[in-house]
Amino acid sequence: MFGVGVGGGRGMGATPSSPTVDAQTFRRAMRQLAGGVCIISAGDQARERTGMTVTSVVSLSVEPAELVVSINQGSSSWPVISATGRFGVNLLSDEQAVEAQRFAGQGGLKGAARYEGAQWHVTPDGVWLLEDAPVALACTVEQVWTRHSHALVVGRITHVRGIALMGASHGGGPLLYWQGRYGRFAAA
Amino acid sequence: MFGVGVGGGRGMGATPSSPTVDAQTFRRAMRQLAGGVCIISAGDQARERTGMTVTSVVSLSVEPAELVVSINQGSSSWPVISATGRFGVNLLSDEQAVEAQRFAGQGGLKGAARYEGAQWHVTPDGVWLLEDAPVALACTVEQVWTRHSHALVVGRITHVRGIALMGASHGGGPLLYWQGRYGRFAAA
Repeated sequence: MFGVGVGGGRGMGATPSSPTVDAQTFRRAMRQLAGGVCIISAGDQARERTGMTVTSVVSLSVEPAELVVSINQGSSSWPVISATGRFGVNLLSDEQAVEAQRFAGQGGLKGAARYEGAQWHVTPDGVWLLEDAPVALACTVEQVWTRHSHALVVGRITHVRGIALMGASHGGGPLLYWQGRYGRFAAA
Repeated sequence: MFGVGVGGGRGMGATPSSPTVDAQTFRRAMRQLAGGVCIISAGDQARERTGMTVTSVVSLSVEPAELVVSINQGSSSWPVISATGRFGVNLLSDEQAVEAQRFAGQGGLKGAARYEGAQWHVTPDGVWLLEDAPVALACTVEQVWTRHSHALVVGRITHVRGIALMGASHGGGPLLYWQGRYGRFAAA
């Protein structure tokens, strides 16, 4: 499966290279990339709410405050974000794995049903933010770049809230995802 | 610091909103976003090697195998990646915090000096990959989107290697970064 590198004869040591990267190998490799878990909330009163669990949020620019999230264009959230031009990013604590699972569609949950069982704050511009999130950010879509299956969505922050911003004593550690499992952060 | 939301009178509960997101607030919020730690390697025999430690790598597309990394255009790595059109992504294990610190410039280390003290594999196309990384990927630059301070660089994978791909018994957990500290993954 992991053959020699292009050019032959290289990468024949303990950790061989793969010259062509098939989907299975790439998936297997990227499962090793740990990520902080976020819920993307989408929709408002006018359009059906939905949302998804991701590990693909990255800070982009501080001034102006912007982040970027990679979203599968085949997801139920994508057309809603595209239509409304807004979305929420809810960073989860290690006590919120249940919320992560709901927004990952566990048990077949879809759309607004994923929001049940938790408390939500609605920003003046209609973005739903998880009440107990360590940090939750309301965003307007500033730019979208599409590439193959995914869209890279640049969000400019319009609101920030969250218990982790209230003081050092508030909020637990982050919820993490690695190799298909949830976990928590342990200090080195 | 965290005033009422736009429209007034909203967000006055336990977790207030901020209508305008200043740099300090945004930085404080994004420190709560945990990430898997990677070393970006840049440069080759022809151009001075350098590199940087990031938590901004995200999977983008499976077919073709592509990832995206957010890079500050003011970093020493950016002009080298831009000139060579290639870079490496080295996922670190929780036993490799020393490497993360070297590539974060601890102790004033710059350029090729960051590579010392570790073993490296050079791919046929000249990308330096950390020998003992759980997963290391050589990439060619397929697309660059710039926005304010940062560049979003799309890398197509040309080689994958790493001890985590050799079997379930190889490789430790991932190195994580959260609130300015390194840590490890603890199963929930």
